[in-house]
Amino acid sequence: MNQEQYVIEKASLAKEAARKLSIIDTITKNNALVAMANALIENTDEILKANMLDMKNGEAKGLSKAMLDRLMLDKKRINSMAEGLREISYLDDPIGEVLTMWKRPNNLKIGQIRVPLGVIGIIYEARPNVTVDAAGLCIKSGNSVILRGGSEAISSNKAIAKTISQAAEEAGLPKGSINLIEITDREAANTMMKLNGYIDVLIPRGGAGLINAVVKNATVPVIETGVGNCHIFVDETANIDNSIDIIINAKTQRPAVCNAMENLLVHKNIAKEFLPKLAEKLIPLSVELRGCPMTQSIISSAKSASEEDFSTEYLDLILATKVVNNIDEALEHIYKYGTKHSEAILTNDYKNSERFLNEVDAAAVYINASTRFTDGSEFGFGAEIGISTQKLHARGPMGLKELTTTKYIIYGEGQIRE
Amino acid sequence: MNQEQYVIEKASLAKEAARKLSIIDTITKNNALVAMANALIENTDEILKANMLDMKNGEAKGLSKAMLDRLMLDKKRINSMAEGLREISYLDDPIGEVLTMWKRPNNLKIGQIRVPLGVIGIIYEARPNVTVDAAGLCIKSGNSVILRGGSEAISSNKAIAKTISQAAEEAGLPKGSINLIEITDREAANTMMKLNGYIDVLIPRGGAGLINAVVKNATVPVIETGVGNCHIFVDETANIDNSIDIIINAKTQRPAVCNAMENLLVHKNIAKEFLPKLAEKLIPLSVELRGCPMTQSIISSAKSASEEDFSTEYLDLILATKVVNNIDEALEHIYKYGTKHSEAILTNDYKNSERFLNEVDAAAVYINASTRFTDGSEFGFGAEIGISTQKLHARGPMGLKELTTTKYIIYGEGQIRE
Repeated sequence: MNQEQYVIEKASLAKEAARKLSIIDTITKNNALVAMANALIENTDEILKANMLDMKNGEAKGLSKAMLDRLMLDKKRINSMAEGLREISYLDDPIGEVLTMWKRPNNLKIGQIRVPLGVIGIIYEARPNVTVDAAGLCIKSGNSVILRGGSEAISSNKAIAKTISQAAEEAGLPKGSINLIEITDREAANTMMKLNGYIDVLIPRGGAGLINAVVKNATVPVIETGVGNCHIFVDETANIDNSIDIIINAKTQRPAVCNAMENLLVHKNIAKEFLPKLAEKLIPLSVELRGCPMTQSIISSAKSASEEDFSTEYLDLILATKVVNNIDEALEHIYKYGTKHSEAILTNDYKNSERFLNEVDAAAVYINASTRFTDGSEFGFGAEIGISTQKLHARGPMGLKELTTTKYIIYGEGQIRE
Repeated sequence: MNQEQYVIEKASLAKEAARKLSIIDTITKNNALVAMANALIENTDEILKANMLDMKNGEAKGLSKAMLDRLMLDKKRINSMAEGLREISYLDDPIGEVLTMWKRPNNLKIGQIRVPLGVIGIIYEARPNVTVDAAGLCIKSGNSVILRGGSEAISSNKAIAKTISQAAEEAGLPKGSINLIEITDREAANTMMKLNGYIDVLIPRGGAGLINAVVKNATVPVIETGVGNCHIFVDETANIDNSIDIIINAKTQRPAVCNAMENLLVHKNIAKEFLPKLAEKLIPLSVELRGCPMTQSIISSAKSASEEDFSTEYLDLILATKVVNNIDEALEHIYKYGTKHSEAILTNDYKNSERFLNEVDAAAVYINASTRFTDGSEFGFGAEIGISTQKLHARGPMGLKELTTTKYIIYGEGQIRE
């Protein structure tokens, strides 16, 4: 069987399962999630053994420390994956919710109800926890899932997928609800991208390269996730101490994630007081400062920031700073360099705060808070499948509701169209 | 300037305009819509002259009668396009609506507000009225629009686009709000399909060939519209007279549209009584009947229906009929051959009606009514940009709300993430 046949066979199973999952009751889904969690704990040894193989291969291949850290599993991490599934079981079932219903002059009653998307494909990198999270969220929202993780995690993913799909099936979910593509070459992913009629939506999770490849090649609908060149604009009326806390948080708490800040804009009237105080705090935290000529004239240790710096999502302890004349220049800069992910203004000026909210086009726009809050659990969604940076279907953190679509139901009494 | 540069230049204008349109007030948008309507009336002679040129070329090219009818404009049709714009001006402005707002335990207030998509691309066939409808809906929802109509209508489209875009600009809308791609070869459309970063969503309107080409080639997000292989299932408890009325309506009122019925399923226990009565009414209306062997044994004049018949969206006065044993067989048939557009059950059985609603996966599922109601104005949306047959973003008739996205707005007081 070649890879194309293999993927289509998996997708056919997923499609059949999706049909059954769409009408399955909430209790069965929740029981399955708990059974999956228990099975992960029971099979911890087996999963860790598989993971050790991946780690050994990864080290031999020379994966970076950060990549190895994402790949690595231990008891605590497996517990936390299981806990994640239990938490999903506590969340409200989004399926079947009647969003609206109205009566037309001809007495037709038209309602709109929430239904699953069907088959969800996830293409991701070497992070075994995504295998569990994505499966849990898809199951709870009544979808079947086709998982295609990075080759570096294949042994871990096989062990995990076998564990959770078996537990799900034993708990009453249809066979084929959770599917792992065990062929990790690029061809299998490319096949998934063109499976119109089988896959209802494809969600790439990972770096810009992966996401762009999916957007370019897919003919099935895609939800773009992730790239965040996030800005914070410190207006002239900002509270200085609080602004420093927010910037430290947004830049350093977890620099490698998409909602970390990458670029700082500072109003010229506050720059001379603010920037030295900020530098004093950031430099001991190993943050490299780069800046426009004005920034450099205030912080002598700052390197020069190029056009490219302002366009770069560093995902690292580097901060590019620009002094701006006013909010208009800040808005212009964000329009030019932003990636429509998360943008913040720190200000005490009411008019500027509202202008920033209204005029910045991004998934999440903040007044006086860290951009790090753009996250499903921070928003209160309980769990997250990713953060959409496109405008269709879902924008921002995506939880269970974002894994659903709607259907119109129409109750008639024999009406015909005039 | 080659076609690619030309399209990118138009798209750049559209992008600049979208930024301004996103924060423009409702009154200015409504005034512009009325001004566009007035300008259409004033320029009727010029538009009709351009349309005559298209009609002459179309006749010379040997376009079908149906195509020529769609292309043809007269005073009445121009009045009706203008009236459509006025009606859009009366609709509520969807932009700025706060859909939800909640407070997190850390006191962050998180809201979700409705914002425009940005730049909407419409690729359509030789129907000049789409030029006006699409422009009106996009403007009202705060989007700029790039229109690329069929080559057969190019003179009409030029005259119309010039008229309405000039009127819009004079009424205060930004330059570049309404853009017509005047190059009608395939290359220009292909360029549009790949303009990520300029075009936020592409909506193809037309036949299956056009839609498939866009889905296959586009890298910008697409909303699929249109193909409808719609079924009506006559259950054994259906009211016979009313069912005949509904089928006549769904099949013959306007056979060339996507919500017309194409396939009839009849419960075996009612078939012998029902089918002859139905045939008696349909045959005089020039409907050609095709059917399964059982259908043929009841209606001797029915031709044999092949597999292909059951998969075909005829868009014509042809009806393929199958006698089924029960609702399960009907559901199975619809699952296999349906295109997830509009499906109906005619029944007096409560359990079957609810099973049909729950188990059929389609944009619109009906009990005891004609499938012809799947339509923005019949649903009460006032106007329609198309009917989505995909599951992402919007499903079913799309009105103004479906031309919007959301953004999260977060009011903080200095919060950082722990």
